[in-house]
Amino acid sequence: MRDLPKEVAGYGRLRPHALTAKAGDRTTKILPDIDSAIKACGLRDGDTVSFHHHLRDGDGVLNLVLDRLAARGLKGLHVAATSIFPVHAPLVDHIRNGTVARLSASFIAGPVGAAVSRGLLQHPVVLRTHGGRARALDMGELVVDAAFVAAPAADEMGNLSGRVGRNACGTLGYPLTDVAIARSVVAVTDTLVPYPAPAIDIAQDKVDFVVAVDSIGDAGGIASGTTRPATDPVSRGIGHDAAGVIAASGLLAEGFSFQTGAGGVSLATADAVGRMMAERGVIGSFCAGGITGFHVAMLNAGLFRGLLDVQCFDLEAVASYRDDPRHQMMSAATYAGPHVGGAVVDRVDAVVLGAAEVDAGFNVNVTTKAGGMVIGGSGGHADAAAGARLAIITTRLTAAGFAKIVPEVGTVTTPGHTVDVVVTEAGIAVNPLRAALAERLRAAGLPVVDIAALCETAARTATRVTPPRATGRVVAVSEYRDASVTDVVRAIEGA
Amino acid sequence: MRDLPKEVAGYGRLRPHALTAKAGDRTTKILPDIDSAIKACGLRDGDTVSFHHHLRDGDGVLNLVLDRLAARGLKGLHVAATSIFPVHAPLVDHIRNGTVARLSASFIAGPVGAAVSRGLLQHPVVLRTHGGRARALDMGELVVDAAFVAAPAADEMGNLSGRVGRNACGTLGYPLTDVAIARSVVAVTDTLVPYPAPAIDIAQDKVDFVVAVDSIGDAGGIASGTTRPATDPVSRGIGHDAAGVIAASGLLAEGFSFQTGAGGVSLATADAVGRMMAERGVIGSFCAGGITGFHVAMLNAGLFRGLLDVQCFDLEAVASYRDDPRHQMMSAATYAGPHVGGAVVDRVDAVVLGAAEVDAGFNVNVTTKAGGMVIGGSGGHADAAAGARLAIITTRLTAAGFAKIVPEVGTVTTPGHTVDVVVTEAGIAVNPLRAALAERLRAAGLPVVDIAALCETAARTATRVTPPRATGRVVAVSEYRDASVTDVVRAIEGA
Repeated sequence: MRDLPKEVAGYGRLRPHALTAKAGDRTTKILPDIDSAIKACGLRDGDTVSFHHHLRDGDGVLNLVLDRLAARGLKGLHVAATSIFPVHAPLVDHIRNGTVARLSASFIAGPVGAAVSRGLLQHPVVLRTHGGRARALDMGELVVDAAFVAAPAADEMGNLSGRVGRNACGTLGYPLTDVAIARSVVAVTDTLVPYPAPAIDIAQDKVDFVVAVDSIGDAGGIASGTTRPATDPVSRGIGHDAAGVIAASGLLAEGFSFQTGAGGVSLATADAVGRMMAERGVIGSFCAGGITGFHVAMLNAGLFRGLLDVQCFDLEAVASYRDDPRHQMMSAATYAGPHVGGAVVDRVDAVVLGAAEVDAGFNVNVTTKAGGMVIGGSGGHADAAAGARLAIITTRLTAAGFAKIVPEVGTVTTPGHTVDVVVTEAGIAVNPLRAALAERLRAAGLPVVDIAALCETAARTATRVTPPRATGRVVAVSEYRDASVTDVVRAIEGA
Repeated sequence: MRDLPKEVAGYGRLRPHALTAKAGDRTTKILPDIDSAIKACGLRDGDTVSFHHHLRDGDGVLNLVLDRLAARGLKGLHVAATSIFPVHAPLVDHIRNGTVARLSASFIAGPVGAAVSRGLLQHPVVLRTHGGRARALDMGELVVDAAFVAAPAADEMGNLSGRVGRNACGTLGYPLTDVAIARSVVAVTDTLVPYPAPAIDIAQDKVDFVVAVDSIGDAGGIASGTTRPATDPVSRGIGHDAAGVIAASGLLAEGFSFQTGAGGVSLATADAVGRMMAERGVIGSFCAGGITGFHVAMLNAGLFRGLLDVQCFDLEAVASYRDDPRHQMMSAATYAGPHVGGAVVDRVDAVVLGAAEVDAGFNVNVTTKAGGMVIGGSGGHADAAAGARLAIITTRLTAAGFAKIVPEVGTVTTPGHTVDVVVTEAGIAVNPLRAALAERLRAAGLPVVDIAALCETAARTATRVTPPRATGRVVAVSEYRDASVTDVVRAIEGA
């Protein structure tokens, strides 16, 4: 090689180039099985592993990987999942057998939630919002040793696609931050495609290893529950009123931006809003979500110019993301991060969200049910409420006989100062912080009532008494977007 | 708010959520001008600012920003540009007036190269490869205080598109790493679009500020020089022989992957290879690059399944990236990073590259011309040669009267152990490291000769004598992909 100086002023010492032994195989990242990947990641007791929930209640990867981690005798792991569903019931055994000692998630439903409430974990669960999790990852508060990324399709260099494959799930908004910060990234796929993959959603430079398995789960399990507007009269009435709130607020104008949950009442609201927009000739800018076939239909009806999608909630949304350039993916950070100078939620005009409970302070609980069992978590709830100009909660007065409008919620997931309006079948309550809005709604003829009145009506309508809040050990901490704490969840005795 | 414990075992101290003053405007990132952005970034003397060269010799942003940095009295800055072109001539004045004290780039052409060779900068320039720059950024060796990202289109939240706008440039492969690691990111656009932008190439979570200016440059300047196959007989002959090398190597089979530079001879080779593929019914997997309309034509002719594009070299490529899902963007890290466990270059079967000089050790110089003046740099040259299974240099024996095949190159940009074949109008030389390949080529009837013979022929054909290498102070360090040093460039006296 060239005769080089040892050092150059203003540069430093020179390391002369020399032909070195090739640093391993650079033409494939494929490993034969999950065990090889666990080994290649150098995972040890106490490490943190992450998973995304794009396959929702059809996910197969978390169970697959935990199974092998347990089989390999790893202990005390921290599972940093974006969300936990009933399908993840085997996680309860892995907590019992000591494989898993810590859990973080933005949503926990099913047997794992019950186990958390029973105090099965020694350490409290950290419940974050979708945006808060992205922040924690980006800021280094949540460190991931290995991110296991379920990939509907992958090529052998680790280009991943959510749009093709046997279990296409659509966008891969959640793992986008994990793959940027995790020490190791393992793609788990059931559809290896020739290099280079089409429709790349996560590029190969972010992926360390690729493992092909028989099945990553069942994309049919994505649509957990309905993703169609509810048709019963009560729901439609609430949806109609919520749409009326949006219209009366003055926000339903050219460029209107909108977000709804995927529940029947939220979509009934979307249905009513869509009709109003069509009547008025209003063309909105975008819908954000959690995208369903219904939002896709609104896009295709010309009611909005685009969709910003952190997760596809049904297979129509998956197909739309695959085929329509107006339907774009967004990462969890872009969607809801409080640390990005302005996320998508900050550009949403009106968001329609659900609730397990709402209280007199407009605080919303989507984390625990009556009695305190963990049945969910913020997901994007607190992020969307904080960002949107108008945050509307749609809810019936009762569910399963319990009052949903209560003096104090069981768990404060979303703080009341970010919630503007509560729409029920018995009237509409407006946060006192929004006095001018309340006036507009009254002037529009909407049935505005005090939240206290809704509380009373709910109490009268309820057939069961909400048990007092649990008093056991703290089993979960409900973090707000910025890592402040809105509430803690306590163990239920004898759950 | 809720009455919370001060601390929870296994979690730590709780910071109770409290309604705090809103942290600034989260609904727009627009600043009125470059000066405001410089101020908002908190830039100080000695800081590092980065720029990409997707508008190539039509770029307007680097000059615009440097102009304002100088006007604001900032001194001693480090300009970490991906590439420098003749249009960036004003940078010479900014070096003279002390605004700029350091320069890093992967390619430097025009007056700035001459100024570097004259020793105008006190500190040596760091010349990296495209992949090496991505590695340096990802590994924290190259720290960027503010990345100024020329954005053909941007919305006010910082979603950027290269595919739409008055000066659409196509893919934005180079700044993808800058925006991930820079302390501040400023998007500079001449086309503000309504939120959310269509065709998002860089998402808003990575962008801090957006500034709209009259013009980011001239996309017509992208196609600097020809992006069509050369048609003169000598070039066509070289191209034909290079294609013959690829065919004889056995690589021209189903799934063939290909990369060429954008020069006339490289594209003449692509032309000949394309004809061979069509004759043989071979369907390739992908072309990588540096993509031109010619590569697009091969895609559309069904010769390849896809294109992986780090930069569009002409407006046909821009339009193809905009319209054809088979034409995908890749970041510089994905393209050429030596630190990603396998990049795109590692999956390229055959790459055809140019050279300013080649020597008897198969080392290639694309950095300096005869006499030692800086006229380029590796760009992706060393990355592609290292990764590809077959790295072919196509070159005439002489240029401007100087020999191009020489005993020792003026600057070792790409080390000889990564270069397999040199094709000239006087024969084909094969690296002694590839004896079996040489045999195949001979057996195929190709005119294989010793590199020494090409040296002699070039010397005899040359009409001018290559001056001895410069002996002045080291003015540039040519780093290989992994930060080892292949060569240094010395000041030319009296340049």
